[in-house]
Amino acid sequence: MKQKRFILPESEIPTRWYNIQADMLNKPLPMLNPSTREPLKAEDLFPIFNEECARQEVNQTDAWIDIPEEVREKYTYYRSTPLVRAYGLEEALGTPAHIYFKNESVSPVGSHKLNSALAQAYYCKKQGVKNVTTETGAGQWGAALSYATKIFGLECAVYQVKISYEQKPYRRSIMQVFGAQVTPSPSMSTRAGKDILTINPNYQGSLGTAISEAVELAMMTPDCKYALGSVMNHVALHQTVIGLEAEKQMEMAGEYPDIVIACFGGGSNFSGISFPFMRHTILEGKKTRFIAAEPVSCPKLTKGKFEYDFGDEAGYTPLLAMFTLGHKFQPALIHAGGLRYHGAGVIVSQLMKDGYMEAVDIAQLDSFKAGCLFAKAEGIIPAPESCHAIAATIDEALKCKETGEEKVILFNLSGHGLVDMSAYDQYLAGALV
Amino acid sequence: MKQKRFILPESEIPTRWYNIQADMLNKPLPMLNPSTREPLKAEDLFPIFNEECARQEVNQTDAWIDIPEEVREKYTYYRSTPLVRAYGLEEALGTPAHIYFKNESVSPVGSHKLNSALAQAYYCKKQGVKNVTTETGAGQWGAALSYATKIFGLECAVYQVKISYEQKPYRRSIMQVFGAQVTPSPSMSTRAGKDILTINPNYQGSLGTAISEAVELAMMTPDCKYALGSVMNHVALHQTVIGLEAEKQMEMAGEYPDIVIACFGGGSNFSGISFPFMRHTILEGKKTRFIAAEPVSCPKLTKGKFEYDFGDEAGYTPLLAMFTLGHKFQPALIHAGGLRYHGAGVIVSQLMKDGYMEAVDIAQLDSFKAGCLFAKAEGIIPAPESCHAIAATIDEALKCKETGEEKVILFNLSGHGLVDMSAYDQYLAGALV
Repeated sequence: MKQKRFILPESEIPTRWYNIQADMLNKPLPMLNPSTREPLKAEDLFPIFNEECARQEVNQTDAWIDIPEEVREKYTYYRSTPLVRAYGLEEALGTPAHIYFKNESVSPVGSHKLNSALAQAYYCKKQGVKNVTTETGAGQWGAALSYATKIFGLECAVYQVKISYEQKPYRRSIMQVFGAQVTPSPSMSTRAGKDILTINPNYQGSLGTAISEAVELAMMTPDCKYALGSVMNHVALHQTVIGLEAEKQMEMAGEYPDIVIACFGGGSNFSGISFPFMRHTILEGKKTRFIAAEPVSCPKLTKGKFEYDFGDEAGYTPLLAMFTLGHKFQPALIHAGGLRYHGAGVIVSQLMKDGYMEAVDIAQLDSFKAGCLFAKAEGIIPAPESCHAIAATIDEALKCKETGEEKVILFNLSGHGLVDMSAYDQYLAGALV
Repeated sequence: MKQKRFILPESEIPTRWYNIQADMLNKPLPMLNPSTREPLKAEDLFPIFNEECARQEVNQTDAWIDIPEEVREKYTYYRSTPLVRAYGLEEALGTPAHIYFKNESVSPVGSHKLNSALAQAYYCKKQGVKNVTTETGAGQWGAALSYATKIFGLECAVYQVKISYEQKPYRRSIMQVFGAQVTPSPSMSTRAGKDILTINPNYQGSLGTAISEAVELAMMTPDCKYALGSVMNHVALHQTVIGLEAEKQMEMAGEYPDIVIACFGGGSNFSGISFPFMRHTILEGKKTRFIAAEPVSCPKLTKGKFEYDFGDEAGYTPLLAMFTLGHKFQPALIHAGGLRYHGAGVIVSQLMKDGYMEAVDIAQLDSFKAGCLFAKAEGIIPAPESCHAIAATIDEALKCKETGEEKVILFNLSGHGLVDMSAYDQYLAGALV
């Protein structure tokens, strides 16, 4: 029997996250106060974020950060996630490439988002915070934070992008089953929401707007902190548990990736799978390609500019040095809601600028085609976001078929698509473009 | 850190299924030919089922049946499934009971159904069958068989109960993504369907009717066999992989269950978790209670009669000696579609008659209440079917709270509810009775 899945014993689950900032030759540029354009210190973030995450955000010296025991305990509820050799996909493509994927879809909420949600909820609890607020698009992050806050005994308020709230009600229900309060954004409960609705009463919402609302709530409410599911450095840090596990699991399989691929929204799953491998590129000159797969409709890495920009629509956040399409950019309403964000995290942006990684654009139709091929070959229906990584993987595997190269490709299956079947429905009915 | 999950190394995944028929003191009564009332032999089933499953169906001598290597290889794609100590639920209830659950929801299709689907698809392929047909209610079984047939390179045709097809389109989409042909039942494609539609054009369908249609298709089509997801002895056999793993995992936890609980539709997940433990009751007199949790609206074990009855609405199947509400029984349209079946498997029925097990009725509203409590405590949203097992578990755990007994309760989490969020939506909105 060929070994299909590689699972770490509990004793091998990482006890530290990897902070790539410490090893980067060119450090990411600092966040700036938008009024003064002065660099921000951790303390400047305390009104919004919990203190530990604020410190992690600006930590450019410690390469390894201990994972608190309470968080490690919750990780064991679903980790290690399997590393899987995609024999079925290889066969379907007829490629000599060895394709592996890290299956983050097995988490109880169905995606990798829980890795950071648990850490952020724990730090909030430790600090005495009672309420956590956030935004969510398709709802993967909101579901993860709803679960994590409940597990740690906190209350959770989620602003969900209105179009997702209405068109994809089931992730809203998931959040509500976990006891979260879910509000469609823009709402009349915040100044940011009111301002937008006054100008455009039918506005269907965006992640940028929802962020503005959640941040405003956190700033205005005692005992309340904001939590973000992507973009930020501390989120990327928490997600490195993915790549650190994958590194050990690739060792079990006796291989090392030539190419690492992930879909790209704000960068959390890409950073998670990539940074631990990129460490060997930075420190030892190991030759590995890192590919971010973004949607054609929101191409910040391939078509955006590297500049200081706000993280949200209303301009409440600090200025971030990143590849961005502009904080007023309104992406098309693709099903991969998690990829509809105008900017990229500052670490990834710097790494992109410095040539450590590359990016490709995937059209929505191609992403679903790839997702269906993967489902038939491997038996897992991928999230619309993850379909982008699969499409990029297939492209590389088909290049190997042409050249005959036995490259080792690793991609991150960031989530499953069982709550996104309406999107597949439309694809199967030929109703997507 | 307290150990939460117990996972078997790949080398410990069972290599044989357990056939409880061999150890039963009173054997289950034979299937009868409805015309002659003669007992049926394996060969009599060959026109409908693949030959190996037909032989397993009537095997009352071999206690252990080897799992084919090809099936074991596919099992490793998701097995062993975790045994989980439900610390969160224990705490929420304030019970001294030790609650464990076997998490079958981690399979790629989200339920235990895959354990038998893979076996049946493999035996069909081995025999040279090209097409497999079946029925499905909510769609858990149909999704599993669609996956399994695709993995083994076969075609699959599924008759889905019309009300589920229309009201819960997402499992239909899952089947279609896996490449299955899905038809709402009753349909005009079979005699059984036509007969029913002629009398009642608006009939919303039932499992019994869908079975009739699928069986008819199998009998009328060359190279086509029928596969059933529950009720039959060979299905119960395949599902024992659940309990066999759980037995080893309970050993890892240093405990043995006082009570084993599962929800009950036709008996597949109940048999799967129970029979390996019941073996020790039969052979060694071990004292364990086995509780089947059925819905109030379909109470075959608690309110049905033990008698010979058809397995389907139209009367195409052999006569089965079982607890039944009558093959014309039309259960209420509860969300736990997998529990809406009029009869119980013949093995379970005999064991029930002989006092090895008991049954309880759970009202739909209580089932969802239990499911939401579990979701908040353990972070997993259970399938509406599994909610019944959870409700029964909570009842037993609360009795322990009264008496102060530290009983060990094991239940089977047969599936997750991520494709059933519309049901939770209705529950949260107070729209369920």
